[in-house]
Parts: sequence; structure tokens; C-alpha cells
Amino acid sequence: MQAEILSVGTELLLGQTVNTDTAIVAEALSELGIDVLHTAVVRDNAKRLEDAVRSALEHADLLITTGGLGPTGDDLTKETVAAAAGKKLVLDEGSCERLCSYFAGGEMTENQIKQAMLPEGCTVLQNDNGTAPGCAFETAEGKTVIMLPGPPSELLPMLRERAVPYLARFSKSVIASHSVHVYGRGEAAVALLVDDLTQNANPTAAPYAKEGEMFVRVTAKAATKAEADALCAPVVEEIRRRVGNFVYSVDIDTLEETVVRELIRQGKTLATAESCTGGLLAKRLTDVPGSSAAFEMGCVTYANRVKEMLLGVPHETLGTYGAVSEQIACAMAEGVLRKSGADLGIGITGIAGPAGGTAEKPVGTVYIALSDGNRTWVAKKSPFGRTKSREWHRHTASSKALDMVRRYLAGLPVDEI
Amino acid sequence: MQAEILSVGTELLLGQTVNTDTAIVAEALSELGIDVLHTAVVRDNAKRLEDAVRSALEHADLLITTGGLGPTGDDLTKETVAAAAGKKLVLDEGSCERLCSYFAGGEMTENQIKQAMLPEGCTVLQNDNGTAPGCAFETAEGKTVIMLPGPPSELLPMLRERAVPYLARFSKSVIASHSVHVYGRGEAAVALLVDDLTQNANPTAAPYAKEGEMFVRVTAKAATKAEADALCAPVVEEIRRRVGNFVYSVDIDTLEETVVRELIRQGKTLATAESCTGGLLAKRLTDVPGSSAAFEMGCVTYANRVKEMLLGVPHETLGTYGAVSEQIACAMAEGVLRKSGADLGIGITGIAGPAGGTAEKPVGTVYIALSDGNRTWVAKKSPFGRTKSREWHRHTASSKALDMVRRYLAGLPVDEI
Repeated sequence: MQAEILSVGTELLLGQTVNTDTAIVAEALSELGIDVLHTAVVRDNAKRLEDAVRSALEHADLLITTGGLGPTGDDLTKETVAAAAGKKLVLDEGSCERLCSYFAGGEMTENQIKQAMLPEGCTVLQNDNGTAPGCAFETAEGKTVIMLPGPPSELLPMLRERAVPYLARFSKSVIASHSVHVYGRGEAAVALLVDDLTQNANPTAAPYAKEGEMFVRVTAKAATKAEADALCAPVVEEIRRRVGNFVYSVDIDTLEETVVRELIRQGKTLATAESCTGGLLAKRLTDVPGSSAAFEMGCVTYANRVKEMLLGVPHETLGTYGAVSEQIACAMAEGVLRKSGADLGIGITGIAGPAGGTAEKPVGTVYIALSDGNRTWVAKKSPFGRTKSREWHRHTASSKALDMVRRYLAGLPVDEI
Repeated sequence: MQAEILSVGTELLLGQTVNTDTAIVAEALSELGIDVLHTAVVRDNAKRLEDAVRSALEHADLLITTGGLGPTGDDLTKETVAAAAGKKLVLDEGSCERLCSYFAGGEMTENQIKQAMLPEGCTVLQNDNGTAPGCAFETAEGKTVIMLPGPPSELLPMLRERAVPYLARFSKSVIASHSVHVYGRGEAAVALLVDDLTQNANPTAAPYAKEGEMFVRVTAKAATKAEADALCAPVVEEIRRRVGNFVYSVDIDTLEETVVRELIRQGKTLATAESCTGGLLAKRLTDVPGSSAAFEMGCVTYANRVKEMLLGVPHETLGTYGAVSEQIACAMAEGVLRKSGADLGIGITGIAGPAGGTAEKPVGTVYIALSDGNRTWVAKKSPFGRTKSREWHRHTASSKALDMVRRYLAGLPVDEI
């Protein structure tokens, strides 16, 4: 089965909104073993949309549209797709009732009701996270059409819980993917290490860059999920072996989740004191559900006065070495450990930019310290001749801190890199 | 001039990576008055890429590719596009030297050098943020081709600083866009208020939803930027008037930037105490360059013990009302204000989920308090019958806190909504 994904929205062609929907849908189809031939973006314009729908129904077996199901005048997808596929729109009673109860206690405007108009005879895909239902149907020519809402927070659960089960009957082979996540070695370096493995057809292995990290994705196709998994396993193991201590996880997508899980497993707690990362490390740790069991306390101490008051950083050390220094990172890590009573303390201080850099300490210089009460390690991140954004410096500094904790918990040398 | 954007990368069709490049490029073209006809995504496959390039060169005047310029074996864009456009690749000496100096002090692998091979006679678009240079050239048929790297952190500055100046000569009319940003009123409600304005052709006005917010984009086309701006101005003013106090900015994209700018303008400082948002509010505030002038201190106090110790939240209040309560939000806001000496204190406590909800306080219940030392306001966010993610609850709670600060600074009723 071959699919085409059509995203509808002039805003996607003006660059105001990033098209995450295509990626979400493509991934789900890929796991069902459905090939995505092509993806395209079309304007909120009935004529252009109709042309695109006709072309898709000609070339592909499955058309999935995203967006344009909402209440406003430029939400044209249902009308246009239904017309191109020769279907009438009728009021769906269930969706109408759901709309009314959704707005119970809030404001419901007149134009909302349009969302309950759906192609005659379709399977309604209920929206548990918003107002616009989706739908699925077959055309007279035997093509499958699925319409999903645009907002990713609505699209993703509808896709997983309603559209995928609808599609499962069409899928013959199954794809399994596993990712080996790496911190501390770049895409090019790892690509050389695993070069021979990337030449295989099944499973395939492909290296990808990710902000300040990289991962190798191993993908196999087989009749069942178990068989596809079994094809992946030895390749995943071989990549782990070659890349060594720089592998932080298999299939756990983020450093923060890896670290939180391991902290909980070991019954250890962590506290953070952040200057230039400004709460980003705490935010990343608490992105992980259940992190409250491992995350004791976080402080964002921008001002020197606050570093002294909250963390007990010595006034003299600040005077002697300056706020952006190895010594202050260590004092912050030790201070927050003492204050919180956690097992591990992190201190981060640096210059995220765009202003504040000097010749000696350019923008991007960050010191990151980890203390366990007995010993304190400190790492220095340098901008390394590269002009990067504030966001980049903050993100990579918080990643480095997470990797230090990971290494500590795994009994690896904390400062290997 | 009509353009097509081609993004290259199998990962974009498997859904592993979200295609932000298309949005970035489309926005820049739109500002130059260049229409984007179509965008598409192609696999890392020479044959398919070649077909797509030929089709684009046939239908459009300008082809912009993103991705596939890197060092690994599946980076095929330059070879394939150059061949389809009838150009040879030659070693560019300047790019070669830049590569060597980029890697000075780091690891440079052999495969990196491939990146310095560029189409003969092209204009090299230097990469200030990575290793792969881009390029621009004209084909024998008078079509323009521009190749840009995939990583957004490299693409964005190269586009702005090198590709846009290259393209400026082709642009006859200019587009200006201005956005009216709204918090506290939904897309559908605002769409009804401005319905008549969305019917105009120049300037156009279109409402868009954004996570927990919305905005109306006003776009005009004219011979000069000044004329286009002048066309937008009365429409922007009219939208402001109709939407009233719910408008938080024109052209400042985020609540956090709006708030930080206004704090700095008024010479006021802010401190935050976060429970369920876990540092996200501090992170958003410190995303804004220069925020250190306005952001005094942030605390992430998950545990009750830490709330007592760090913020002086009374033990009895915790016992009587529970950690997720109006009283604790107020005590946190007042505590962090006292502790930090800032002008304003924020306290946030709630249940972000997925676990921890009760019948009385379901997941998504969040209390947000703002104190100025004389008075404390508190707002309750309810899940309102909608199942949303942890990320959603955390994001919208931090947005609500930012909006309360904005309203306070503007002298508006803090608890109007």
C-alpha cells in the first residue's frame, strides 16, 4: 500500500507554522509498513486542494490529509475532499453532542457546529483533545481517505487510537525501528564507525544528527513485529559495542528520561543550581512524568547575590574567580547539594549570549559541575570557534550536565569527554 | 517569480525528523514577495531526487533545496542537483580552508572534505554555523537553484545573510506581515470578531491557533516595504480595538518576551517559585536575551519539605489545604518575593499528570499566584473536561502566569479571566 500525505494550510506555505503533522503521520505509516511516496503542502484554496486530492487519489492507494477541519471560513478540507471523492456532507449526531458537551461551561460560537458535518457513511474518528472530529472512508474506486485535524495535540492521539487501528487491516508487512542514542560523538565520527552496517538493506542503519547529539536508527521489515525486532537486535548490539560509553540509551529518546529512570532505579535524588541555563535543566528533568521521585529541588540563580544567599557560594570566590568559572560551578553544585539534602548536585554557570562574552570567556563558555558530597567533577564547554545561538548553548550545556549524571550513575568516568 | 521548495531526507518521510526547513524558507520567500507554489519532501535516493529536481525546474523559476549537503554517504543533494542542472562539481578552495579551520583542535574525519565540492561557477553560500557550505547558481535555461543545509541552526543564518541578498534582485513586490498576539480568547471567538476583515484581499487577515494562544496575521503586498506596512497598520489597529485587553502584543511573538521587555522598561524584577511547571516558567523567561536584568531568582520546589525550607511556606498550611491549593500558590509567590527581594513573585502549584489527579483536583488543575508584596492574586486553571498532555498543562500554566504579570504591568485587572 502506498500513501500520500497532504497537509492543508496557507500558513504552512508562508512559513508561519512548522508542519509537524507530516512527520507524525509518516512515522505511524512507516510502522505499519505503508510506504509514503510523497508529501506535499497545499493552500487553503478549494481549487488547488481539489487538484491535489485528485492527483493523490490517482497515484496513491491511501490519502491522508491533515488540517483544515476547524470552525473558521478557511477550513475547507472536508468540503473539498468529500466533493472530489464524490461524497455528501451530513450532520453527525454523535459529533454534534460531543461538541456541545465539550463547550459546556465555556463559550461556544455558532461556527463550531460546522465541525460536526462529515462525509456520508464515513467512520468517525472521535477527537478526544479538541473540537474537530476526523473521518475515514473508501471511495467508489477503492481508495482510502483519512482526514485528521491540524493541531498536533489533537492529531497525534486520534492517529494512534483511531486511525492506526482503522489502517491495520491494510498492512501486510511490519516495520520495527530501534534507535541507538549517542552523546559525545558527532554524526560524522559515528557514521565512519558503523559505515559497513549502513550498507545493508534489511535491517537498514542510518545515522542522524540531533541538537548536540546523534542517533543511529536501525529499521527492519518482516511479517511480524517480533521477527522485525529480531532482525534489528544484533545490529543494535554491534553499534553499541563500537560506540561504547558514548551510547546513552537504546530507544529512550532523551538524556533526561534516561537519567530520571536511572535515578529512580537507584533510589537517588538530584538537585540543580542553574545560572546561564535558567531553569532549562530543571524543565527537561521535570518533562519526564514521575520525575518528582528523583528531582529534589532546582534553583535558578542569575544574580551573584542570589548565589550567595540561596546556595552559600562564598562572596570571596565570586570576587576572585568571577561568576563564570570552574570554582563557582563547583560551589553551586556543592551548595545546592548541601541545601537540598539530595544525593547529587549540579551547578551550571556560563555565558549563553548573545551579549556578555569576553576574549578570555567567549559566548558559549559554560562550566558544569557535579557533586556527590564526596567529590566534585567539573567540565568546561567551549564554543570551539563556532557561532551558535543562545538556545544552542543553553541546550547543549544542560545535555552535558545530564550526561555527567548518566556517567556517574553508570560508574563510568564522569569527565571522559 | 514562483518557487518550489524541495526537502531532501528519507528521515522526513519516516517521520523521524520534523521538517522545519520548509517553513523557514517559505517565510523568507514570502517576505520577498516570491510565491511558493508547492513544497515537497524527497527521499535520499538519487533517482527520485533527480525526478523531483527536473519537475521543479520545469514548473518553477526558483528551486530551493534543503538538506543532504553533509559528509555521509546518503548526502546526495549536490551531486544529484548539479547533474540534473548540467553542472560539474569542483573543489572550492575557500570552503576547504574553512573546513580545516573549523576542525582545528577537534576531530576531522576524511569524509568531511566532500562538503567542499561545489557546482562549477556557483556563488558559494558560506556556512557560519556548521561544516557544509550552500550554493546558488543559474541553469542554462535561466532557472535559479539554491541549495541550503538541513540543520535549521545552519540553514536559518545562511538563508538570511546569504541567500536572501542573492534573491533580492528577483523580487518586484514586497510583502509585509504583522501579527496581533492574543491570550485568553480562542481562535474561533476571535475569528468571529474579525470575520469581515478576513474577507479582504490586500491586506489579508487570518486567525491562527497557537499552543494555548492565538494570533491574527495581517499581510499586505505593495511596491515597497513602507507601503505594505502602511496598508497593514489600520487593520492591525482595528483588530487590537476589537479584541481589547486580550491582545498582548503586536509582532512580539511570545508572552515571555513581551513580559521581559516590559519589566525592563519599568525597572521591575520578578522571582518565580514553581512546582508542577518544574522550571519551565524560568526557562521561558530566560529564553529572552537580556532577561538577567529582570529575572531575580527562580526556585523549583517539588517536595513539600523544600517548599517550607526554601520559601517559608507554613507547614500547617500544607497540612490544611494540601500542596495543590490556592493557599499554597499564594504562599509560594509571597515566599519567593520575600526571599528574593524582587518586585513581583509568582507561585505555581498543580497536577501536570499523567498521574496524581483526583476527582476533586483532576490532572490539569493548576493554581497560579502573583504577589507584589501588597496584594496577591490567584487564578485557577481547570482542565475543563479536556484530556491534554503533561506538556500542554505545563505550557499553558506558565503562559497564564506570564499573562498575569503582563496585565499587572499594564495596569489591567489581573484576574479578568
